[in-house]
Amino acid sequence: MPAKLDRFYAVIPAGGIGSRLWPLSRADAPKFLHDLTGSGQTLLKDTWDRLAPLAGEQRVMVVTGRAHRAAVEAQLPQLADENVVLESEPRDSTAAIGLAAAILERREPGVIVGSFAADHVISGDALFQHAVAQAVAAADAGYIATIGITPTEPAVGFGYIECGDRLEVPGADDVEAVSSFVEKPDLATAKRYLAGGRHLWNAGMFIARADQLLAEIERNKPELHAGLVELAAAWDDPATRGPAVDRIWPNLEKIAIDYSVAEPAAEAGRLAVVRGHFQWDDVGDFASLAKLNTAGRSGELAILGEGARVLADASSGIVVSRSKRVISLIGVHDIVVVDTPDALLVTTSEHAQRVKAVVDALRLGGSSDVL
Amino acid sequence: MPAKLDRFYAVIPAGGIGSRLWPLSRADAPKFLHDLTGSGQTLLKDTWDRLAPLAGEQRVMVVTGRAHRAAVEAQLPQLADENVVLESEPRDSTAAIGLAAAILERREPGVIVGSFAADHVISGDALFQHAVAQAVAAADAGYIATIGITPTEPAVGFGYIECGDRLEVPGADDVEAVSSFVEKPDLATAKRYLAGGRHLWNAGMFIARADQLLAEIERNKPELHAGLVELAAAWDDPATRGPAVDRIWPNLEKIAIDYSVAEPAAEAGRLAVVRGHFQWDDVGDFASLAKLNTAGRSGELAILGEGARVLADASSGIVVSRSKRVISLIGVHDIVVVDTPDALLVTTSEHAQRVKAVVDALRLGGSSDVL
Repeated sequence: MPAKLDRFYAVIPAGGIGSRLWPLSRADAPKFLHDLTGSGQTLLKDTWDRLAPLAGEQRVMVVTGRAHRAAVEAQLPQLADENVVLESEPRDSTAAIGLAAAILERREPGVIVGSFAADHVISGDALFQHAVAQAVAAADAGYIATIGITPTEPAVGFGYIECGDRLEVPGADDVEAVSSFVEKPDLATAKRYLAGGRHLWNAGMFIARADQLLAEIERNKPELHAGLVELAAAWDDPATRGPAVDRIWPNLEKIAIDYSVAEPAAEAGRLAVVRGHFQWDDVGDFASLAKLNTAGRSGELAILGEGARVLADASSGIVVSRSKRVISLIGVHDIVVVDTPDALLVTTSEHAQRVKAVVDALRLGGSSDVL
Repeated sequence: MPAKLDRFYAVIPAGGIGSRLWPLSRADAPKFLHDLTGSGQTLLKDTWDRLAPLAGEQRVMVVTGRAHRAAVEAQLPQLADENVVLESEPRDSTAAIGLAAAILERREPGVIVGSFAADHVISGDALFQHAVAQAVAAADAGYIATIGITPTEPAVGFGYIECGDRLEVPGADDVEAVSSFVEKPDLATAKRYLAGGRHLWNAGMFIARADQLLAEIERNKPELHAGLVELAAAWDDPATRGPAVDRIWPNLEKIAIDYSVAEPAAEAGRLAVVRGHFQWDDVGDFASLAKLNTAGRSGELAILGEGARVLADASSGIVVSRSKRVISLIGVHDIVVVDTPDALLVTTSEHAQRVKAVVDALRLGGSSDVL
């Protein structure tokens, strides 16, 4: 068991459908409610299991949509009622994480919040926990901290963090300033990043004192900040929460925390990065899912799904079985077959990114029943 | 309407599952009970519609398995009771066609029988009927006649008939002797056949006087012949048919009529062939089915299935939809997707021949529930 971290509160934003994982991920069964690794439990539960030992079970907050409340509570029976923050509609990550920070800062001034997506896959829990501990130390020293993942290949599907000078942080020996955030690069650029050693994958993990996180939002998005503070003030009184949510939440600006906090803080020299040496993947599409479940060995066929009846001959890629049907593959390579009771997807790893376009086409074409 | 042919009786052996069309074709839903062309009716009904005008509705006999009686009768409401011959178990084509011939010869000595598979696809009915009329004339002149299909490409999936000398047949101007039957050739040989003009596709159509067909069986398979004659003698008396079937049918030799009749008759100079100029396909696998339903245009996607909900992007091949599910294809070429309520097949045209091996593997693996 790792040592609990003082003043640390974990926040898990559990939002986003994961459209590129359709028809596995759905509006009513988003990515974080699936077992994508064959671990036997959902990504959300995996995330809880990594964070609860660090923060304590009473100090993990989940921000999710109203529609997912029951599913989240079923997954996380130890989750305290006061640590469930329900969104009436999605307003992006600044609103979700900022509201959690504002609520927690009122309850416990000086709290350090760390935000970790509910639907990423991580292995190497000890390395993860070590990185979080360093990030908490950096947050305690006044930085907004992030954890960047040491690249293992020239990935073009992730954003990158460019490291700057080493920072002196008490209790942490591996913290650097962030020079800049970089959007998803092309392959040549990604290869340079990998060779150079100064770029890390942006895993969207942010750790900071709640008051400093809020101050950063206030600097860059003052109206959004005002709304979050007002909402937090009304939150813990049942008589005031509902009306405040109805009035304020739908009008909050939708903006990712990368833009409202991380990039401006990096420019101002207030962002620190800890190098994470654990394995991480955001499992953005079926190509990543295939890779993850074959441990990157091409030529293998990954099979996901309890009780899957798959008969494959000379085939590779991934089959996700969510129906009870017999699935037979013959001579198909790098294939992606996702079999659910009401929808079937057949594509290849190469085209996995295009699944989102199909979801959009289905929506426009009146097939929302399967989305 | 074509003129009815004197003394002609059409026999439709409706057997065979069509394993290479699994999971569309099944033990309880064999190939002849499917609409494989989008015509809106089954192949069996298509076959009836071609033959009934030639023979008369009262002169079409169907030989099928007991399990398919209800389905066959539902498809062919005009089929007379006395023209339904039920097999207690499959004994191959000599037994099926020979029994029909023996029953009909007893009922009507001198009858000319013509046997046509229930599960082939033909277009060009007038050309077909013209060919049958010539074959009946050849049968009337004492030959065992077949109809060979003029090749349109160097197909390696069919057997071939090598034509010999032209035969003088009253009432038919395009009849040749058969030199030999040739098994499925390799591509180079098939190209030579196509260029040479002396080879036709063997479509398994045989037309002969029933007494001569039976005499040919007697010459080559005397025990089988004796069984068929004995069974036919018992057939039309309800008191004797059942016991005779139970005693004789299970012991009949299983042999295709190609070996028991056609090849020996060809060697002996008793086999005549009429050139058929209609389009014909035995739809042996999903590659043929795809070709048939895209009219041979590669790069197109054929969709079979009433109410199919298919969303395809940059994909070609064939989708057979027998469930109500949304099927989405992205960037898959020459693909074969067959979607049924309890089984799914994903392969490519190139590997379509291997479907039978999968069916065998499923049987051995205890998945007979989906066969």
